[in-house]
Amino acid sequence: MTRTVLESKSKTVTIGFDEPFCVIGERINPTGRKKLAAELEAGDFSTVETDALLQVACGAMVLDVNAGVVYNSNPNPNETEPPLMRKVIELVQGLVDVPLCIDSSVPAALEAGLAAAEGRPLLNSVTGEEDRLELVLPLVKKYNVPVVAISNDDTGISEDPDVRFAVAKKIVERAADFGIPAHDIVVDPLVMPVGAMATAGRQVFTLVRRLRDELGVNTTCGASNISFGLPHRHGINAAFLPMAIGAGMTSAIMNPIRAVEMEAIRAANFLMNHDPNGAEWIRFSRVLEAVEAGQDFAEASQATAASGGRGGRRRRKS
Amino acid sequence: MTRTVLESKSKTVTIGFDEPFCVIGERINPTGRKKLAAELEAGDFSTVETDALLQVACGAMVLDVNAGVVYNSNPNPNETEPPLMRKVIELVQGLVDVPLCIDSSVPAALEAGLAAAEGRPLLNSVTGEEDRLELVLPLVKKYNVPVVAISNDDTGISEDPDVRFAVAKKIVERAADFGIPAHDIVVDPLVMPVGAMATAGRQVFTLVRRLRDELGVNTTCGASNISFGLPHRHGINAAFLPMAIGAGMTSAIMNPIRAVEMEAIRAANFLMNHDPNGAEWIRFSRVLEAVEAGQDFAEASQATAASGGRGGRRRRKS
Repeated sequence: MTRTVLESKSKTVTIGFDEPFCVIGERINPTGRKKLAAELEAGDFSTVETDALLQVACGAMVLDVNAGVVYNSNPNPNETEPPLMRKVIELVQGLVDVPLCIDSSVPAALEAGLAAAEGRPLLNSVTGEEDRLELVLPLVKKYNVPVVAISNDDTGISEDPDVRFAVAKKIVERAADFGIPAHDIVVDPLVMPVGAMATAGRQVFTLVRRLRDELGVNTTCGASNISFGLPHRHGINAAFLPMAIGAGMTSAIMNPIRAVEMEAIRAANFLMNHDPNGAEWIRFSRVLEAVEAGQDFAEASQATAASGGRGGRRRRKS
Repeated sequence: MTRTVLESKSKTVTIGFDEPFCVIGERINPTGRKKLAAELEAGDFSTVETDALLQVACGAMVLDVNAGVVYNSNPNPNETEPPLMRKVIELVQGLVDVPLCIDSSVPAALEAGLAAAEGRPLLNSVTGEEDRLELVLPLVKKYNVPVVAISNDDTGISEDPDVRFAVAKKIVERAADFGIPAHDIVVDPLVMPVGAMATAGRQVFTLVRRLRDELGVNTTCGASNISFGLPHRHGINAAFLPMAIGAGMTSAIMNPIRAVEMEAIRAANFLMNHDPNGAEWIRFSRVLEAVEAGQDFAEASQATAASGGRGGRRRRKS
């Protein structure tokens, strides 16, 4: 059974075929968030703090941390991103005890994150690009951490799922050359928008099964890509996630502060027999009741968490 | 490719692996609906009329018709059900032009329904029980109609999915003896409540794949059984349906007058590449917008249907 073990200071989260779906909160990321980028440049970390607390209350089991901000005062991310990564990780670790996912395209920022993170974080990411393989895999080996492997290479992102599978296979094989086991590779097969590519959904479902059966790896994705450009995106996401889980997807990098997607994931966990006695579903239904009564989802989740109804993984450890 | 062809007076609906999920509206059924039962005994068919119109407006592609009412004045269904079945079918056919699913445990009512129905209805149902096989399969052959095959037999409903598969296989083989092809058998693998049986979801997903791959049959289910006894049932149903569709389920007998389940099915159709250009999703998103603005789902669906935005299957024929 493939198990990818992540750790924070004191908690363990396992991504695996027989585990509840692992929700990796995506919000601590200034990319496309101008306001957050400006705050970070000004040394204001209040949004990061709120995002950390709310995402965990809403059910994130891992938090992605991306410090890819382009400062007005210094446009060179090789200089600005490593210290900011360290700062954000230290801040987040002081607030919540969940494993982190260190997310950067800047190798020095990945290494700064690895040095700062407690426990066993997930590194995000390596691709099939040659220079990326040569830069990131030694870090993965040196720090003995799992890594997200995105299935594009020097030729770009293929629309052919067989090519994306081949890229994933190449990364797994190259990692093996470094002594990195397949269970420490979490493949992102790349989710295309179904509005632009009609086969996007089926491609993912087929790829996830192949990645699991043929390579024995866990999988992740940027789940909301599937609905890009469509009306009522959350309805598409909320059907996509259970279908992907049914096909064998074991994690997603996503916004957990959305009732509809989190409801779909918790129901899917129950239906996959990953929620013993429906305890998590019944606990979550109290949040849904508060939402129906007019409360905000994040507030209702925080209130339920404060009263002891936290995520199942964390409860089991306590 | 397995195709189960149903017809009304002038419309064709195909249940198939490469077709949008077939929603069979369950509401015209007095079982457990005391008010409806009393109305029918009194000769009041207004609820049947409303149920027929609303279900089709909300997206039902086939309507189940069950006349299994126990009259206070005559408790013998062998006497009361056949004429009531005929009456209800004639009424429904006069209101809506969709194929019917003739649903009874009384053989004479099945035959009365078959005689009254226009086109090519679906017969509901045969089981693996010996007397049922011997009574129903000759009707299926005589009227050349497809039939729902429920995977229980004289020993009852097995909790072992391998036994339920074996029962389905026996029905398909027995039907073949009558000259009935597998593509005219729609197997109901029986959905257990996940609150009572933790493996209920996974059993269905595995069974549906096997039924499709090994027997080449279409499948259906009483979808809402999965969430029996649980809080926030519709959230469980709305994850179960896309997962079942992803596993290969091709129809369900269900209540279509529920936005959340219909949204899940329409999103799943899109993700399975059974909604060219997302045309149905975009049309349906207008209904969702009206619901968000405070309108009742059925009213919003009727308004959209009246303005030309009817179901995709029917549009293709017009």
